Amino acid sequence: MIEIERKFLVKSNDFISKSYKKSKITQGYLNSNSNRTVRVRIKGNHGYITVKGKSNLAGTSRFEWEKEIDINEVEQLIHLCEDFVIDKTRYLVDFKGHTFEVDIFHGNNEGLILAEIELTNENETFDQPDWLGQEVTGDIRYYNSYIAKNPFKNW
Amino acid sequence: MIEIERKFLVKSNDFISKSYKKSKITQGYLNSNSNRTVRVRIKGNHGYITVKGKSNLAGTSRFEWEKEIDINEVEQLIHLCEDFVIDKTRYLVDFKGHTFEVDIFHGNNEGLILAEIELTNENETFDQPDWLGQEVTGDIRYYNSYIAKNPFKNW
Repeated sequence: MIEIERKFLVKSNDFISKSYKKSKITQGYLNSNSNRTVRVRIKGNHGYITVKGKSNLAGTSRFEWEKEIDINEVEQLIHLCEDFVIDKTRYLVDFKGHTFEVDIFHGNNEGLILAEIELTNENETFDQPDWLGQEVTGDIRYYNSYIAKNPFKNW
Repeated sequence: MIEIERKFLVKSNDFISKSYKKSKITQGYLNSNSNRTVRVRIKGNHGYITVKGKSNLAGTSRFEWEKEIDINEVEQLIHLCEDFVIDKTRYLVDFKGHTFEVDIFHGNNEGLILAEIELTNENETFDQPDWLGQEVTGDIRYYNSYIAKNPFKNW
C-alpha cells in the first residue's frame, strides 16, 4: 500500500497529557538505503518487519509493506542490523479528528521528539495543535533510517 | 536458525533425469550486503521473505530466517529490489541419503548451474554423484546476492 504522512518537530511536552496510548518501540534497519528500507521493530509485545520504498518528491507518500512476525524472531534479526538500534516511546494523541503519533527518542537520540500524522490523501487538511513545531516532511535527516546511522546527539 | 550447506559447480545435466521435483524460482534482493541479505522469492506458487546473516569463515554456516508471505506482496517487493532479478529452475535430486538442490540459471545468468546440499552439522559426510563438479562453498562470487549484482554473462 501507499502510506501518506507528514512529519513535524514538537515544541513542548503538552501532548503527553492529551495522549491516550503509549508504547515502547525498539527498531533497527536491515537496509537503511532510502530507496528501500527494511526495518525490524518491536512495539509493545508485537514484532514486525517493514519494507518502505522511495518517497515521492514532496516526501509525503511512500510504498509500505508490513508483516507481523514473532517477537523472538525480531530480537534475532535486530542483531543483524546495520548501525544503531533506535529506542523511542510513542504516544498516540487525538486532535480534532486526526491522530498524531508522537515519538520521544531515547539513548543516543535523547532530546529528539517527532510527530507524524497519517493522511488519506496528499491534499487532506488538518488542524495543528499548539505543541506542533516546524514541518520536516521529506527532510531526510528526520527519517528514522538516517537517525539510525547518525544519532541525534552527534548532530 | 543456522543453515549449514555446501555448494558445488555442476559438470553435466545428468542430474535432470534423476530429479524428482522441479520449481521455477524468481528472486531479488532488498539488501545484497553479505553481512545481512534480505531476499524476496517466488518459488512455484509460494512467496517468501528471507534474511541471512554473515557466513562463518569456511562459508558453510549462516543464520537464516524465512517467512512465507503472499505471492502478490512478493511481486510488489521485487519492484523495489536492487540490481537484477534472478530467474532459475530448481531440481531436487536424491543421492545416497541426501538431497541436492540443483539450480539452472536463466536470463543474464544462462550457463550457470549450481548444486547445494544442506547438512545437519559441518562435519557430516556425503557421497558425491558423478555430475558434481568443483566445490565453491564460501566463494562469494557464487552467492546469489553477488550474481544479482554481477550477472554470469558479464564474468
